[in-house]
Amino acid sequence: MAAPDRPVNLSDALSRFDETWAPKIVAEANGWQVKVVKADGEFVWHDHPETDELFQVLSGRLLIRLDGRPSVELGPGDVYVVPRGLRHQPVAAGCEMLLLEPAGVTNTGDVDSELAHDAEWL
Amino acid sequence: MAAPDRPVNLSDALSRFDETWAPKIVAEANGWQVKVVKADGEFVWHDHPETDELFQVLSGRLLIRLDGRPSVELGPGDVYVVPRGLRHQPVAAGCEMLLLEPAGVTNTGDVDSELAHDAEWL
Repeated sequence: MAAPDRPVNLSDALSRFDETWAPKIVAEANGWQVKVVKADGEFVWHDHPETDELFQVLSGRLLIRLDGRPSVELGPGDVYVVPRGLRHQPVAAGCEMLLLEPAGVTNTGDVDSELAHDAEWL
Repeated sequence: MAAPDRPVNLSDALSRFDETWAPKIVAEANGWQVKVVKADGEFVWHDHPETDELFQVLSGRLLIRLDGRPSVELGPGDVYVVPRGLRHQPVAAGCEMLLLEPAGVTNTGDVDSELAHDAEWL
């Protein structure tokens, strides 16, 4: 699907599914995709060797454990970028968030996990 | 300045300045910059020949007039991408928004305007 030519409301988009850790693409710009994600509990440790990953929390809380660095904790309106190649583990408490990353990125990076999920257009 | 290694709160960032139409960079990922902007009234018609531009409204209202297409209107939580090369005119009513575009993009594109403003890190 091409990028929509009308505005997309993030709350509406999030109300259309219940799955956790299953990013849904809602917009695309210059080959980057905006994804909305519901998250709860611990995700797997992983990294993305080729790309930085931008998180924006819309509701709830998100802890991101970082390999060899202090964890960061995000609430609504907080933005954080995990640098490429840095292993990290998201841990969420009823969190809704926006992810921004290049098209084709898998949520678990190079890690083989049952949580691996290619994003689809909502 | 390098990208911050701690989360940035968008509301806090917006509370630190009053200027309108003066984007402030708050994060960077893969050479893309996240900017916060306050906007009120009419901006100039312009385009960005080299890049799509992603708008996310955080508060207030934003009308985007589009050359040869119906205008789009955004409220809080709405995301919209203006395709590269499409002339557009943002018209804001007390709007706070997030912009996402490659580093180095000027807000007025190729248009010579007193509103031209290179984004700076907040």
